[in-house]
Amino acid sequence: MKQKITLREVGLRDGLQIHSTFMPTVDKMAWIKAEAAAGMSEIEVTSYVPPKLIPQFADAAEVTEQSIQIPGLLVAALIPNMRGAQRGVELGVHKLNFVMSVSETHNMKNVRRPREDSVADFREIVAMIRQQPEGQRPIIVGGLSTALGCSYEGRVSVKDVVKYAVALVEAGADELVVADTVGYADPNQVREVFKAVLAEVKHLPIAAHFHDTRGTGLANVTAALDCGIVHFDASLAGLGGCPFAPGASGNIVMEDLCFMLDSMGLDTGVDLNKLVEIRKAIAASLPDIAMHGALAKAGLPRNYLPASERLAAA
Amino acid sequence: MKQKITLREVGLRDGLQIHSTFMPTVDKMAWIKAEAAAGMSEIEVTSYVPPKLIPQFADAAEVTEQSIQIPGLLVAALIPNMRGAQRGVELGVHKLNFVMSVSETHNMKNVRRPREDSVADFREIVAMIRQQPEGQRPIIVGGLSTALGCSYEGRVSVKDVVKYAVALVEAGADELVVADTVGYADPNQVREVFKAVLAEVKHLPIAAHFHDTRGTGLANVTAALDCGIVHFDASLAGLGGCPFAPGASGNIVMEDLCFMLDSMGLDTGVDLNKLVEIRKAIAASLPDIAMHGALAKAGLPRNYLPASERLAAA
Repeated sequence: MKQKITLREVGLRDGLQIHSTFMPTVDKMAWIKAEAAAGMSEIEVTSYVPPKLIPQFADAAEVTEQSIQIPGLLVAALIPNMRGAQRGVELGVHKLNFVMSVSETHNMKNVRRPREDSVADFREIVAMIRQQPEGQRPIIVGGLSTALGCSYEGRVSVKDVVKYAVALVEAGADELVVADTVGYADPNQVREVFKAVLAEVKHLPIAAHFHDTRGTGLANVTAALDCGIVHFDASLAGLGGCPFAPGASGNIVMEDLCFMLDSMGLDTGVDLNKLVEIRKAIAASLPDIAMHGALAKAGLPRNYLPASERLAAA
Repeated sequence: MKQKITLREVGLRDGLQIHSTFMPTVDKMAWIKAEAAAGMSEIEVTSYVPPKLIPQFADAAEVTEQSIQIPGLLVAALIPNMRGAQRGVELGVHKLNFVMSVSETHNMKNVRRPREDSVADFREIVAMIRQQPEGQRPIIVGGLSTALGCSYEGRVSVKDVVKYAVALVEAGADELVVADTVGYADPNQVREVFKAVLAEVKHLPIAAHFHDTRGTGLANVTAALDCGIVHFDASLAGLGGCPFAPGASGNIVMEDLCFMLDSMGLDTGVDLNKLVEIRKAIAASLPDIAMHGALAKAGLPRNYLPASERLAAA
């Protein structure tokens, strides 16, 4: 039996947030629908932040309302605080991704509060969600940014990652995301951090969110797979970065990640050719956005059989 | 104790051979000297092929003669046949990299002979080298191209890789190189192939030569490290490809590889900052060559301490 891997598209949020040109709502929806049709089961479609702060997400309500109509798609959105969480609940989004930084400096710069206050905020958000009527409670995710390095502080201690992972779980997280926000991680560090978190946090999905800022993104995925991680964030064409992390460039490239996993015989559920096709629509909508990725240039290997067909043939 | 990793620069051969503009000999030598000064212990400086076939290597003699004067540098060159081997021996090069393809079609296209004839050629080359006076015998390396996929045949059987690895060792190879010439490999396949080769070929250095054509290069390095491989080919700025493999782009990026290994706490012996500096000279010499690499764009992480200093501080 093939191991099932869950991929989550974050390009519409992490990818677009640093891009100053607004992507028209109709183009965002075309992207979301096409990627859902390609087999992507989960997409982070927007962020519930004030449009004054990030104009790119001025259409958060429309994008959410339309996305949750797509059959079979799990629709997620980022929230920085209670206000965002309340908006998400009102809109009926399926999953809320709360984010705090493991590095104190990055947390202060990103959400303007100490880490302990972020944990307290998260606790209140969980309480608010639990007050909702059954069937209207979104999945609540605790996200740990800068867990593998910080562009202000440099190395981040593994102890702190574990401390805040445990804090978010104790506060009521349904899932965790451990993020290399600025692309500092190497495979040994990934193994060390994920093993340490997994030793303390069990029976809870833990996703890896890597950036490819220094070329190590897919190597880090390999290391995380070795630890048993099966949930990965990525963005089409490697769009992305962090507006508050100087020097950071894109997320790992979804189609390259998907090719690697499929080639390894893992079941992503995603159609590689359809995935690569979507790049054209993104490029047409935002001609000045930086597109990354090797597979789109090189194409699939000669006579390449997707994992699903290889298994069927075997 | 830190694990020692040997990196080998192949950009002057694998990188330049597909580039039609001749890099002046003086620029090649500046590159080689600068990289040796950065701590690179082994460089494949040229290829002994007829200049009519690849004009880039018209200065093979001068480059070899000057390179072997650089103290502490192991100077290697590629050879396609006996004629190339004889030139190498005459020039006093330290190491000869013989290359054949595991895929029959690629071998026919690349060196215009069946694989079995290539093995026979290699046997004769080894015999010729052994006839040389002691102290004048270069190290002879058996290289297996398309060992992880072929742009003509697609997947390549692991059995064939092992078969030709054993054949080259039996014929007298001092070392092996197992190459993903066209960038088809994934980490699982790397583990499978290298484990299979290592099971049959012991007590002999085996190097991995990966291309990053589909973005999996450093992930494949991680997988090879897991198997115990400690010798890696790469090229500065990811220059390279194979003229006979349609669609193939560059080798893995030396400076990104070096950053990943150093970050993992492995001892490459190479100074990362000096390495990145050399890119400028290459770009100045060949303004139209495609330069790849993430580290050069993003820079080292904040407060980054090289592995050597981390160990000293610990």
